[in-house]
Amino acid sequence: MSLTRVHNFAISLDGFGTGEPQSLEEPFGHAGERLHEWMFATRWWNENVGEPGGTTGVDDAIARRHQPGIGAEIMGANKFGPPGWHEDPEWKGWWGENPPFHSPTFVMTHHTREPIEMQGGTTFHFRDASPAEVLEEARAAADGQDVRLGGGATVIRDFLAAGLVDHLHAVVVPILLGRGVRLWDGLEGLESDYEIESVASPSGVTHLTLTRTR
Amino acid sequence: MSLTRVHNFAISLDGFGTGEPQSLEEPFGHAGERLHEWMFATRWWNENVGEPGGTTGVDDAIARRHQPGIGAEIMGANKFGPPGWHEDPEWKGWWGENPPFHSPTFVMTHHTREPIEMQGGTTFHFRDASPAEVLEEARAAADGQDVRLGGGATVIRDFLAAGLVDHLHAVVVPILLGRGVRLWDGLEGLESDYEIESVASPSGVTHLTLTRTR
Repeated sequence: MSLTRVHNFAISLDGFGTGEPQSLEEPFGHAGERLHEWMFATRWWNENVGEPGGTTGVDDAIARRHQPGIGAEIMGANKFGPPGWHEDPEWKGWWGENPPFHSPTFVMTHHTREPIEMQGGTTFHFRDASPAEVLEEARAAADGQDVRLGGGATVIRDFLAAGLVDHLHAVVVPILLGRGVRLWDGLEGLESDYEIESVASPSGVTHLTLTRTR
Repeated sequence: MSLTRVHNFAISLDGFGTGEPQSLEEPFGHAGERLHEWMFATRWWNENVGEPGGTTGVDDAIARRHQPGIGAEIMGANKFGPPGWHEDPEWKGWWGENPPFHSPTFVMTHHTREPIEMQGGTTFHFRDASPAEVLEEARAAADGQDVRLGGGATVIRDFLAAGLVDHLHAVVVPILLGRGVRLWDGLEGLESDYEIESVASPSGVTHLTLTRTR
């Protein structure tokens, strides 16, 4: 059975998945890199960027769950580029010629364009459709494997509200952003559909895992 | 040195310290007792209410920090009674003739009244003043001991924003309330004044401890 999975999605103690304002220079706004330092410290991250070293404890073990078994990705428009990216016909995402998705990748946007085929197996498809519709297409493209929901916060929240997420891994970072985009808004009673596990890492972050039970 | 301490303050995964609407029948609104079940399961709680049994692990150990060394309490009007309590001249709080504070207890309210002396050492004082002013008075009343800030969320947030909290213990309960009163609103950058520790309990809650470092 093909699952819909969220991995390594970092939020602040006050629940923000990104700061503000988001821009080309600051993709996470005033949050800067603070939501992701726990990840940059892992060996998994270093391997991906060709660097030596890194931690090999619980942060690393959980972060590595990001890729195995994934056959397609879905992301929101704000993950694909800074505000206004759709006005630049040359914009191909933040990630260079070989993006780290290595699969069909569906960008949810009101500003659709022709698919962009990148190196390493990533092809960006642009869709102006509902979460359920985009998921159906991504699932078919994943060819029996799972679909990763890549964020940002708004897209994850929309999929949660629609009951479409099977596995959600969120990482609570002990900072208070005060402003930005919240992950949990409008999800009263969500816990009744999930088993929720919490594990505190010695690095200071807390890993939350929501596993769908019905 | 006399500290200002918060203990056993429970919040939902989405950051609400209480649900809504608060009433005589439902002091925590639609949250019911769900924010406090972790506490009711401890031996400490059972001892306080004269029942046998209860857990003796990390939840119990941390919960017990509530009372030792406390010489006064400060609480908000919404902790003292349901909306409109000030219109009832006979209202003396939720806790019966012998409230669990056993010390001078300062209620922050725009509707002040004469002090109420209860059994067991609790006297309620009603103050319409700033956090700093009420804290100064409570500290004097505590006679060298610490002051406990009892909540609710709005009062704790106001004291945090004013830089007046030395120790904050919050308990994150894995439910999503979706609405109510948030603890963390408007506290951007708070982490720079605190060491923040997170420990996940086998009961499913996560204990957050903020210790003031400057």
